[in-house]
Order: sequence, then C-alpha cells, then structure tokens
Amino acid sequence: MTAVSRRALLTGIGVGAASVAAVGVGAAAIARQSEDEPVATGRTYDFYGAHQAGIVTPMQDHLHAAAFDLTTTSRDDLVRLLQAWSAAAAAMTAGSPVGLYGAVNGPYDAPPDDTGEALDLPASGLTITIGLGPSLFRTSDGVDRFGLADRLPAGFGPLPAFPRDTLDEAICGGDLFVQACADEAQVAVHAVRTFAREAFGTAAVRWSQLGFGRSSVTSSADSTPRNLFGFKDGTNNITSDDAAGLDDFVWVQPEDGTDWMTGGSYLAVRKIRMTIETWDRTSLREQEAVFGRTKREGSPLSGGTEHTVPDFAATGRDGAPLIPTDSHMALAHPSANDGHRILRRAYNYTDGSDGLGRLEAGLFFLGYARDLSRQFVPMQLRLSRSDRMNEYVRYLSSAAFAIPPGAAGPGGFVGERLFA
Amino acid sequence: MTAVSRRALLTGIGVGAASVAAVGVGAAAIARQSEDEPVATGRTYDFYGAHQAGIVTPMQDHLHAAAFDLTTTSRDDLVRLLQAWSAAAAAMTAGSPVGLYGAVNGPYDAPPDDTGEALDLPASGLTITIGLGPSLFRTSDGVDRFGLADRLPAGFGPLPAFPRDTLDEAICGGDLFVQACADEAQVAVHAVRTFAREAFGTAAVRWSQLGFGRSSVTSSADSTPRNLFGFKDGTNNITSDDAAGLDDFVWVQPEDGTDWMTGGSYLAVRKIRMTIETWDRTSLREQEAVFGRTKREGSPLSGGTEHTVPDFAATGRDGAPLIPTDSHMALAHPSANDGHRILRRAYNYTDGSDGLGRLEAGLFFLGYARDLSRQFVPMQLRLSRSDRMNEYVRYLSSAAFAIPPGAAGPGGFVGERLFA
Repeated sequence: MTAVSRRALLTGIGVGAASVAAVGVGAAAIARQSEDEPVATGRTYDFYGAHQAGIVTPMQDHLHAAAFDLTTTSRDDLVRLLQAWSAAAAAMTAGSPVGLYGAVNGPYDAPPDDTGEALDLPASGLTITIGLGPSLFRTSDGVDRFGLADRLPAGFGPLPAFPRDTLDEAICGGDLFVQACADEAQVAVHAVRTFAREAFGTAAVRWSQLGFGRSSVTSSADSTPRNLFGFKDGTNNITSDDAAGLDDFVWVQPEDGTDWMTGGSYLAVRKIRMTIETWDRTSLREQEAVFGRTKREGSPLSGGTEHTVPDFAATGRDGAPLIPTDSHMALAHPSANDGHRILRRAYNYTDGSDGLGRLEAGLFFLGYARDLSRQFVPMQLRLSRSDRMNEYVRYLSSAAFAIPPGAAGPGGFVGERLFA
Repeated sequence: MTAVSRRALLTGIGVGAASVAAVGVGAAAIARQSEDEPVATGRTYDFYGAHQAGIVTPMQDHLHAAAFDLTTTSRDDLVRLLQAWSAAAAAMTAGSPVGLYGAVNGPYDAPPDDTGEALDLPASGLTITIGLGPSLFRTSDGVDRFGLADRLPAGFGPLPAFPRDTLDEAICGGDLFVQACADEAQVAVHAVRTFAREAFGTAAVRWSQLGFGRSSVTSSADSTPRNLFGFKDGTNNITSDDAAGLDDFVWVQPEDGTDWMTGGSYLAVRKIRMTIETWDRTSLREQEAVFGRTKREGSPLSGGTEHTVPDFAATGRDGAPLIPTDSHMALAHPSANDGHRILRRAYNYTDGSDGLGRLEAGLFFLGYARDLSRQFVPMQLRLSRSDRMNEYVRYLSSAAFAIPPGAAGPGGFVGERLFA
C-alpha cells in the first residue's frame, strides 16, 4: 500500500503528504498496484488558486455534478454556505475528511462530521468546481433575493431555447452548481453528498448527474477518448498548455468588465441523450459523414491523421465536399464560428434503461467559455438547426453557470469578490 | 503507452497479448502511468472455464448489470442468443471488439459490428456473467415457452416477498441476466450495450443498473471497501482462496441433483436504497449499533480488530450485549444462520436525485450461493423482520437467477448443458 489514503493522512503514516500536493496544473501520481487490484491514484490538485480546478486540469474518469436551489432568502446564509463548501472542498481535494473530527473521532452521541465512505481511498485527483446560476442574481420572475441583481455579469443569463430542444425543466438550471471529478467514482459521489449535507436548511439538490469516461481532452498529452457513438471526442479541444487559447477563450479577462469574475469562466451544461439503438443500425459511411471524421483514427474526411487540419474545400470525384457541410465537425469548427472556441469537458453517461428497453445513455456536455453568448450560443444555434447528428440525439437539459475565479487560500471562498 | 488496448490487439503491436491472459482466478496487471492520467489496467480474465468469471474473480470498480425479457417463444432463437452472447463475451473479455470486422473494418455501407466506444481501452479486467431467471423455465402464469419447465433446478424459483419490501416490479426479475464488471465503467457499459444489440428481435432490456466502488471483498488480499453508510462492507465474505468454503456455499455440486448446473451458482439481486439524509443525522453510537461494528476499523463491538471473531455473548457493564442482537452483523452472521454463508458481490450506486432533493443512492446487492432457498432466503427473512438497519433502507427490487457453469471453450456457450 503506497497510496496516500485519507487514513494515512489522518494518522501521520502517509508517505509525505506535502510531496504529492500539486502546484497549479501539474500533479504527482502515486499508484497502488497489486496483481488483484485495479490501481488507484493519490494525485491531488490544489483547491485554492487563481482559477478553480476542474476546468483545465486533466480530466478524471468520473463525474458527479449537481445543481442546487436555495431554500433561504438570507444573503448571510448564502455566504456561509459558500464558505462551508469551500472549506469542505479544500479538505476533500487534499484527501482529508471534512469537519473537525472526520468520520470517527467526534462526540459519540453526535452524527460524524464526515460520512466516511471515502475514508480509506486516496485523494483520487478530486477537483471540485463551484458555479452560480443566473437565477441566483435574479429569478425568472425578476426577484432579486440576495441583492445581487446589479452584479450580474454582462452577457450572462439563462441559455436561450434552441431549436429541437426537448427539455425536462426538472433537470435544467439551478441557483448553484458543483462539478466533482475524480479518478474514483466513490470519491466524486462523496464530494457531492457532502455538499448536499452542508446545504441542509439553505439549499436543496435540484438535479444531479453521474458521468464517466473522459469524453474530452484537456491536455495535449492525453489520447483522445471516445463518446458512446464510438467516435473520438474532443480532438480539437483547447488544452491546458495553450496559454494564449485559454486567455482568449476560457478565462474571463479584466477588460471583460466584470471584476469579480476575472480569472473565472462560464459553463454551459447540456444533457444530450443519444438514440443508441438507431445509431447502431446506421452504416459506417453515415456515421463518418455525421462526424466528418473517420471512426478508427478520427481523421478529417478530407484526409490525414487525427490532428490534421480539416480541408473543408476538398471535394470528391462527385464534386461534393469530402467533409459534409452539415457534419458535426464542419458546424462546430472555429472556422464556422468566427474563430471562436470553447473548452469541452464532457462525460459519457448511462442512467439505466427506459420503459421501452432502450438504454438511457449519451453525453453530459460541459463546455467552458470566456463568454457563452459569443462563443457557445451561436455555435449551439447552428448545431441545433443543421447538425446531421440531430437525428441521433435529443437535448434533455440546459443550464448556464458563472464559474468564479478560485478562492485565494484558507479562509477565502469561491465567489468571495461577488459579496465584497 | 504500455497497456494492451483493443487497437494494439487488432494491429498486432500489443506487448504480448497471450502473456496477460489469466488462467483461472489469477490475473496479470499491466498499468499505464503518466503524471497526468489515471491508470488503466490491462488485466484479463478468461471467459471460458469450469466456472463463469465474475463470481470469485477479484472485484473490479465498476458494474453494469442488466436483465432481459425474451420477445420470442422460439427455443432456437434463445439458443442462438446465448451462443452469440458467449462469443461476444469471449471477445470483449479478451480486450477485442465483437464481430468479424470490429468497429471500422467492415463493409462501408453496413453498420459496424462493434459499437466502438471501447476501441482504444484495455481489457480492463472485464468479466461477463450470464444468468437465467425462473421465468425462463415457467412464466408467473405457468407457461413453459421453451420446453424447459422440467429442467428447473430443485429449490430455485423467484425470491419470496419479504417483509418491508417496497418493490418496483419494473426493476424486478427478468428472463435473462448479465453482470458486466470492469476496471473502467466504459468497458462495462460497452459490454451490456453489445448484449442488448445482439438481443435485438429476441430479447429486450427489462432493467439495467450501474454500480461502483467494490463494496465487497472477494479476495483475502483486498482491503475492505466501504458502502455508502461509510462502513466497511464484506469483512466476513467468502474469499477466492477458501476452496472448501466455495464448494460448500457457492458452487453447485453433483449431489445437488441438477446436473446442468454443476459448477454453477445462484444469484440473489436486491436494490437497496439508503435513506442517506436520515443516516447522516444519526449519531456515531447509533451507526455502530446498527452495524455491530466500529466505523473506523470495522471491529466487532465486542472488541479486537476487523477480522477478530465477534463475541455475541459479551456484555457491557449494563448487562446488555456489546453487539446488539438486532444489529446487521448479529443477524447476518453464519452463527445466526445455521452456519450458512453466501458470497457477497455488492456495488454502491447513485442514480441521481429524486424530486425531493434527496440523493437516490444505496447498495446494489449481488449475493451468490449454492442454494438460495437454504442460504439466502432464511437470512433475508430474518434481516427483513428484525434488522436495526431497516430504518435506514428501502428494498426496491428483487430477482433470482441461475448462473450456469462456464462455457467450456470456443463454440461452447453458457447454458449449453441445459439444452443438451
């Protein structure tokens, strides 16, 4: 057992906890190995910093995301919740239990501070990313519950209704948002459960979603994972080593005019069900035409390999474009979107099966952008209107969140500058 | 990249696929490591053998289980499905795509043989375990669709109604069952999806369930994982190195009188929702009394460490038993069950949240036994009547399956002897 577990950290028998604390985007990986067990990683990402972790940090295998609605109208309660969440997030991302006493050391006649299911697991690269919904600033019927209406960032609001949306309102929106990602599902679930517990009396879970499979790339060193259509997904993503791309397209800049958001980002959430059974009966030719890429390699249909720049002007012997103009790639490509890009951090999901024997599966899309109204909305509008993929997907949910910059350090909290 | 991926196997650039094929219960682990990526394992378990894999083989982190109802009354269709499933399972557990052509090499105008989402992933320790429900032999209204009624194993049938059950019929039972477990969720999901696809026109998915977290132990080398109550779960399980225990309590023996099941087992499935929010507000004292064990170490409340034999006669200063007689351990212990034991292979689950803001989470219980009617039913009856844990759980589903012995080798299939 060489991994740093919560227990080892507690009892002081770890292998130098400080040595595995990552600075910024980098991370140290410590792996437990045996013939019989899969390997768990003890890598950690700092919760504190200029940006929140979980955006450009490398994607982990597992997601548990949740949105909350506030049940209070007290601004102080809201601030206390964000403080409690930030403190809990700092502990959990370091591989420690939450609270003063953890799961086992508190008063015997009180509930344990920590729920305990992650007690022996390593930090597992946990990142916790906190967001604020447009309704926090002003409800859909115009109420300013927390005196925040005049701090609403310019250009930020609920996503518009897109053509072909078939939304379930119960899983749309939310006043607050948390994205927990980890190498172990149990660690991500523990984080969201802890947030829900801290929120008791202040906010209630509106919806939550599990995801898996690193369906996007956030580091240029990663190989590109596949979505549940079986295609590589995220080939052209903005990567963590593209500093200029991050400043241009992900991080809110001082000149954007919303000071408390500088260093933050905005997130678009869309639950996209795939009609797996229909897709699985379509030809390889049609599947590749839908994506504009080959299935095996992920190369543009204009030729080359995965990272070859697509040639949208190239035509075949019949004179038609090799990359169909209604393919997903053609419509989502920066060249079709005034050069705009977003940072994709999508996960695959499977919720079980519906009453008709079909698997409820698809893509839980998470896309980060410096300005959703300029980068995401026009692109999604174009896709919703014309994407050849629309025949095989249904958009089930939609949400937008402001993702404040990171908390500066212990005692600070995500969103602090909003309330200053 | 040192892991054996499906692509490497396909293109012959793997690192010696044969060298990682496990014989029996053992397995070789090959791990990919980098600073930025979690580690995926290339371990493999043979699909063919005297017993099906996925029972005593080491637990993987992820489960996708599904039950199917037959939509045909043709015995030949049923046999063809079991043949197709076995062939697909043999390919997938070896880390290969299914079908002649895989996901990318078939006719361009036909749907790909393999759906492709696991194409670049290693075998990930995938095991696929196939089961047959009581309704396959005779429906609840007595119809013998496949001429199998006289082959129903003695003592095998639907689980009885237990006190306090609040079952949702839509997620109970099923004619056929598959349990796919893997180190990567995407690999397990790919397996169930492939089974659903092979079943098209013959059987339809009745229910499916994802799980995570290795909530049970199947090897004495494993540390004991925790369930979502935060307690170690499966301390007293039958382990793969306990040959006598396996023969006594897991594998069907020749003297059990059902020749086609010799070497097989029986499976009880119960979806157990935990009322997390209530549990999280109970004292550490009450939580430990419910389990009969300490939360940190998992020691019996009569003293010692995790694997100390519990002393049910020990009393405290007040004269009351140190291990409450209605604790989960006291009621589930072999000493309270005529010495009977079962092999637990449960997973934690989280399905999202309900309309009241509560996390839908709990334990997806999978228990294997040589004879459910003697080993599982009396124990569950005792638990359903008296378990102190009942205040914190709801039983949502119930199912029983006969798990035939393993397929002998290529060309053979699970259940073959039933049709001989």
